[in-house]
This record gives sequence, C-alpha cells and structure tokens, in this order.
Amino acid sequence: MVDAGSFDATGFRKALGSFATGVTIITTRDDAGAPVGLTVNSFNSVSLNPPLVLWSLAETSASLPIFRAASHWAVHVLSSGQEALSGRFARRGEDKFAGAELENGLANVPLLRGCSARFQCRTAFQYEGGDHVIFVGEVLAFDRADVAPLVFHAGRYAHATRREAADSLPRDAWLEGSFNEGFLGYLLGRSHLEFFSRITPLLEQEQLSDVEFYLLSTLTLKQRLAVDDVAEALKGVPEGPRETALRNLHARGLLRIEADGASRLTPGGSACALRLISAAKAVESQVIDQLGADEAAALKSLLNRLLHVLDPQVESLWSE
Amino acid sequence: MVDAGSFDATGFRKALGSFATGVTIITTRDDAGAPVGLTVNSFNSVSLNPPLVLWSLAETSASLPIFRAASHWAVHVLSSGQEALSGRFARRGEDKFAGAELENGLANVPLLRGCSARFQCRTAFQYEGGDHVIFVGEVLAFDRADVAPLVFHAGRYAHATRREAADSLPRDAWLEGSFNEGFLGYLLGRSHLEFFSRITPLLEQEQLSDVEFYLLSTLTLKQRLAVDDVAEALKGVPEGPRETALRNLHARGLLRIEADGASRLTPGGSACALRLISAAKAVESQVIDQLGADEAAALKSLLNRLLHVLDPQVESLWSE
Repeated sequence: MVDAGSFDATGFRKALGSFATGVTIITTRDDAGAPVGLTVNSFNSVSLNPPLVLWSLAETSASLPIFRAASHWAVHVLSSGQEALSGRFARRGEDKFAGAELENGLANVPLLRGCSARFQCRTAFQYEGGDHVIFVGEVLAFDRADVAPLVFHAGRYAHATRREAADSLPRDAWLEGSFNEGFLGYLLGRSHLEFFSRITPLLEQEQLSDVEFYLLSTLTLKQRLAVDDVAEALKGVPEGPRETALRNLHARGLLRIEADGASRLTPGGSACALRLISAAKAVESQVIDQLGADEAAALKSLLNRLLHVLDPQVESLWSE
Repeated sequence: MVDAGSFDATGFRKALGSFATGVTIITTRDDAGAPVGLTVNSFNSVSLNPPLVLWSLAETSASLPIFRAASHWAVHVLSSGQEALSGRFARRGEDKFAGAELENGLANVPLLRGCSARFQCRTAFQYEGGDHVIFVGEVLAFDRADVAPLVFHAGRYAHATRREAADSLPRDAWLEGSFNEGFLGYLLGRSHLEFFSRITPLLEQEQLSDVEFYLLSTLTLKQRLAVDDVAEALKGVPEGPRETALRNLHARGLLRIEADGASRLTPGGSACALRLISAAKAVESQVIDQLGADEAAALKSLLNRLLHVLDPQVESLWSE
C-alpha cells in the first residue's frame, strides 16, 4: 500500500494500467476550421437517458483550449486494425489527418472511418478533475460496426478474446480419466489433425505423406537442414518415419543431400512446395475468414508464445 | 447514424459496449457499518497530480444514497480469475460479501483480495451526469499485483492477450515462398509436434506410437468408437497407419473390437491411458505455468473455437 505521504506517480500509472480499456480518438475543429484529434483511453459511458459519455484531457495539452471552446466533438472507438492510427494520434506535431478519408459529422466535426463505434457529441459539461478537465458530452448521433476492438492494457496493445464457458472449468477437469478440451495437448493435436485434413487432398495429389510435407515446408523456411536440424525440426516424429520421409523426397528428386548429409530443396522440390503453399493459402484464408481475422491473429500470437515456452532455444524464424 | 430524434437506447448500449473495459468492484460501508459493493465498468483514470479516478453510478441504484454519503470508497480492478465475483457483485439481493476474506482499508472501507489493482479513495467531487452520478475520488493509497485482468467487451467477458510485433505483419507475408509463423497451419503443426515431443518419452515407455496414443486418448473421451468414428477421429491420419494402430492396440489387449467393428478400451487400456494422462498432466502443468494461466485459457478457448470452424459438425465433447 502506498499512502499519500510518499505518493509514487510511476506506480500509480502502472496500477491504473491494470484496468484494461479500449482506445479512442477524439476529434473536433479549431477556430480556423482545421481538424484536431488525439488518442484517449480515459473514455467511458455515463448516462443512458440523456445519452452521455465522458473523457478527460490534460491541462497541459495543446488541444485543451480548442476542446474548451468546441461546442461539438466526436469519439471514435478504434478497431483492432487501427493500432497505427492510434499511434499517430497519440504523437504531437505530426499531420495526423494526412491521407485519412474524412467524413463531415454534425457541426462539421471530422469523422474517421473503419472504427468499432463513433459517438457525435455536443459538450454538456466540463468538470474540474485535478490536472485534467473532464468533458461530458451528450451523444447526438452514433454508429457501430461489428469489428474487433483495439485494447490497451498494462501500457501495451492487446487483443480481446471472448471467453468460453469452458474457460471457467477447473483447470484439471481433464484429470478425471480422459483427455478433453481442457487439455492443451489434446487441443493442439486435434486442431492440427483437423486443419491438416483440409490439406490432405492436396498432398494426395502430390503423393506426399504428412511427414514429407512437414519436412518440405520446413525446408522452404530454413533452406538447408543439417542432419541434426532434421531431427530437431521433426521432433516428435520417430526416427523410422523421419528417415523414410527423407529417403522418399530424395528418391523423387525433390530434395538433395549434400556431402555432409545436409538436405536442400531441388528446383523441383521448391516448385512442389510452392504449389502446396498457394493451395494451402486458400484453405487457410477460408478458415481465418470463418474464425475472424482478429481471433486468428490472437491465436497465432499465442501459438508463437507457446512455441517459445516449449522450446526457448528456438530462434524466431521471422528474423531470418 | 442515429440522431437525437429517434434515439435508440438498445443500439446506444451496444455501441458503448464496443469500448472494451476492465471490470471493477467498488466498495464502501453504510451508516450501520455493513459492507456495500457493486460491479462497475465505468471506472477510469482522471488525474495524476492530484491522483484522481472516477466512476458513475445510476440514480436508480439502491446503493446511491450510501455512496453519496460515504467519505471513502475503494476501487478493485478485477483479475482474470474473478469472473464469478464480478457476477456476484453485479446482482442484487445476494449476500455479496459472504465467504469473502476482507481486509480493512482506510476509513474502515472493506477491501477484497486477489485483484489486479486496488485504489483507496476519498470522495473529491460528485458531478451530475444525466441519469448517473459521477464520483471522482482522490487516491490515498493503492496496490497492484501482476495478474491478468478481467475484461468486458460487447456484453461479455473476455481475455486480453498481448499483441506481438508479428501481429502487425501483413496477413499474407508467408505467401512469399515459405511457410512460417504467419501460417496458422504451420503453427498448429509445429506446436503440436513440440508439445508432443515432451510426451514422447512416456510413449516410448509404454511402447505406443503417436497414432496409437491419439486413438487411446480419443477412446478415454468417447468410450466406444464405431468404425466410422475412428476414421473421423483420426482424420488427417492416412488409412494405413490408422489400421496398424487399431491392430496393434488390439493385439496388446488395450482395446477390444466388438461384433460390429466398434472399438472400446479394455481395463488394461484404461489403466494405460490413465498412466499417460497423469504423466501428461505434469508436462501440461509445467507448460501452462510458463505460458501463464490466462494466456493458456485464452489459447484453449481459441483452439476450441477453431475446432468448431474446422468441423462445425463436431459436438462439444464437454457436454457428453
């Protein structure tokens, strides 16, 4: 516990950051009619009838006199894809509106596009709030799109992922004698196999086994796999099937073995991999469209983090 | 766009829900010294110096007179594990504090435990806010724990998952000729194999192949698999290895084949599965501790959703 006598401003900021928020951009126009906007996460709802919302602006903000004088302003609740916009409107001195396609709202307030929700407001109250001014606005008009939100928590951007009923099950519910959705290993295996079953027809066309496919795709990533790299890349695949896969790919001219035993794709192997990649992309796009782009991004992000936990030695393949 | 003339209260609520928030419980004591508390997501920060925070309470709330009269109150920012607590403090007429271990804060305000952050406040201002009162409190003391937050978005609870730099990569970066972390199918395969490699030593002990293990674990879940069920459960596994797995498990007395060809675990098969399950639990617990309980819950949730996208026919195995 921190008390007033030794108030720790950094700690206080950090504690405030524990409260997750969406991210908004608030816009208006200055005296000269130029659009003004800034990124704000102190937004929240106040009242339903009359419809009121609020946000706070620092006394030191260069925009304060403009908002103090503005009769109207608009709140844009940012969507998951607007992280860059959030960053731009959080910085000073940039031409924040450059390139943005604006609409004109009530009282000529500039409106941005692609948001989760927008609230067009008339200033109702301005209240004292220490080193900030609390702006309360009456909502005159609003709109909303069904897109995933941008979230801010602990000083960073985040994805919001809907909870499932299953999330609140006891963590070891699966211990009672069966593997099930509570068991991560089972979920990974089943997702992998289900996903993979969509690609199976493509593999049959190319007459490739699953292990051969996995080896081929690892080679598109790593270019050259030493003997140990193959073992590492196909960890979890027993030695027998691993050897067979190498031998088959070699026999079909898709892979060549160098003097030291390392493997590389041949031009034929690259071509085969490319065919699979573009066909697999179609499958993947379909799945992501159904799952939702933001859920898919969150899932990828978590799987990447899982991989780093499972194998801390693994270098990030992105950086290659 | 909705305008004031035809204001749609339901639509307005829904639009407000686009703004993600944390969840708080605000507590105080009434005249008689009884603890009072309610779930609130209209909390936000206001000022750093002096440290101020705010929240809004409906004019119709039974607790309004109590908070109006209270000199002090406390804000608890709930952690991911406190969904049930949030629900309890959001309902009326329950003994909300029953069984809760309370601490006594400044001015004897009751404090709950296990939160992401707590702010002990003295009422600084009470402002008019339409059908709500805006309470602004000066923070006299606060504390914070490094735990994942409870998040509310679009009328539901959510997980907040940190974004990775990779999340902002173009979605089809992987198209440039290789599979990589941008490709969900690759991530699933690699995570599965990496996870599975932790279990491999256990399988070697039991002399089981990966497909046999998968079949065994499916049988702990489904009890009885008809011939078609086996094909369905092992989708993505070619017919040859599938047949071999069935035959081997049968030959070892772990599985029995019924007259119609359906498979069931024998007592020996169940015992073997149980040994694997408890050993795998140790592996899983370790991975979850490293990944973080909340990240793991979010990952499981997303994998479950992915499974429903991949195979909408699949019944929820939980409900069996």
